[in-house]
Amino acid sequence: MTRRTVTEVVDGHGRTRPDTVVTEEPLEIRLGWPGNPAHRVAVTMRTPGADFELAAGFLLSEGVIGAGEPPRSVGYCVDRQLRPEERFNVVVVTLTGPPRRAPSHRATAMSSACGVCGAESLADVFTPDQDPLDVTPQHESADLPRLAELLLDHQPLFGRTGAIHAAGVYTSAGDLVVAREDIGRHNAVDKVLGARQLGTVGYDETALLCVSGRIGFDIVSKAVAGRIGTVVAVGGPSSLALELADRAGVTVCGFTRGARCVVYTHPGRLKMG
Amino acid sequence: MTRRTVTEVVDGHGRTRPDTVVTEEPLEIRLGWPGNPAHRVAVTMRTPGADFELAAGFLLSEGVIGAGEPPRSVGYCVDRQLRPEERFNVVVVTLTGPPRRAPSHRATAMSSACGVCGAESLADVFTPDQDPLDVTPQHESADLPRLAELLLDHQPLFGRTGAIHAAGVYTSAGDLVVAREDIGRHNAVDKVLGARQLGTVGYDETALLCVSGRIGFDIVSKAVAGRIGTVVAVGGPSSLALELADRAGVTVCGFTRGARCVVYTHPGRLKMG
Repeated sequence: MTRRTVTEVVDGHGRTRPDTVVTEEPLEIRLGWPGNPAHRVAVTMRTPGADFELAAGFLLSEGVIGAGEPPRSVGYCVDRQLRPEERFNVVVVTLTGPPRRAPSHRATAMSSACGVCGAESLADVFTPDQDPLDVTPQHESADLPRLAELLLDHQPLFGRTGAIHAAGVYTSAGDLVVAREDIGRHNAVDKVLGARQLGTVGYDETALLCVSGRIGFDIVSKAVAGRIGTVVAVGGPSSLALELADRAGVTVCGFTRGARCVVYTHPGRLKMG
Repeated sequence: MTRRTVTEVVDGHGRTRPDTVVTEEPLEIRLGWPGNPAHRVAVTMRTPGADFELAAGFLLSEGVIGAGEPPRSVGYCVDRQLRPEERFNVVVVTLTGPPRRAPSHRATAMSSACGVCGAESLADVFTPDQDPLDVTPQHESADLPRLAELLLDHQPLFGRTGAIHAAGVYTSAGDLVVAREDIGRHNAVDKVLGARQLGTVGYDETALLCVSGRIGFDIVSKAVAGRIGTVVAVGGPSSLALELADRAGVTVCGFTRGARCVVYTHPGRLKMG
């Protein structure tokens, strides 16, 4: 968090006081592998913290590494050309071998494909090694609404700044495994996927993902990359997110409130009374 | 909006019913000018509607066109190679002359600069033709909290899907001029900036911008590009958004609730009791 002096206005009258805001800084991700020195593949505006997990999760989401394949190493850049304040904003990921998909290829393919048609964009997400997920009853539907409450209990920054998103991964029984916060929804998801990728937490084939906001195409796309079959959100999903979920075998649940939630796709993964 | 059949789960018991979700589809933006045939410069996932404004606002935000400079024409692509369902997902913008900044240059510059240091990224936003905005008393501070309420009154999609962002431009006196919705915060802002750019609404040098969500670096950056000096939000700002606002002369107000709001930068633009 970053400290600021602010002016609070009530009924047109202002008074100054100290306050904190959520920190946002750019993170550059560099990628290399044996015989190939690291080079920049992405820059994302993020909340500092869990940077190695963010980098690993981003590369998973982009199809550069596969689910459950940890990189050889992840570390902050120690390039002497970087100024001191820049050093913790550059992360270098080294793979054990060539990437599954060149990161620039994905960027081009995404632009090219989803630029002209939603269907082609959807097709692009299904690389040959990504079969649809099995839809078998795995979770008690009555457990779903409380996942978001568990997440809120693990959001230290939200309580103090009120301006941050969170994502969590849960066991099949609904126990929280890892939670991460970020100013960007997509970064929060990359961080929890990265925690599984780096072995910070165990890799569970029947895990659930819960996000504090809405479910856009990007969120379901990340779940597919991470082989997570159930996505739960406090907010609602988009049409394109559901088209992808239909095809990929992902159960999407939105609008969790009290003992209630709305299941948009593949309810067969849930046990109902 | 898109119609779906959903399963509503209450206390572990499910029942199906019809529902609507917010529509998300890719939009490809192509840019050309005399002597230069149009080529793809960006793809964004957006909620269809106000597509021409979105394209114009995006190009403004990227520094390709300047504030108040309308393009020569904007239209859907009529390329015969496009399939029918793709036709309304490709917009072609033709400028009267060469762009102020090549779109690829900005993309590269953004990556390159903000990849290694926040300060350089901030510097990149200030092109030589963007002087800091004048900070003089322009708005009644008591008017600010109600801007968000006005915006909610103009959010037809939010009420039905609960999963969409909104942005509005207001006169200096706080009257709503134009409001737009989108699944992406950034797109909603590009749409209202684009409406000013295309002359859908008048161009007012003392306009305010109000957004339904949080204020990240990107939102203040768009306000600077559109020469809008005051940004109001229901949510809170990030540290980098405020660093940019400090330098650019933008007044940032967050957490509007009832008769209250918090002013983070340049309170001198507000009249207080």
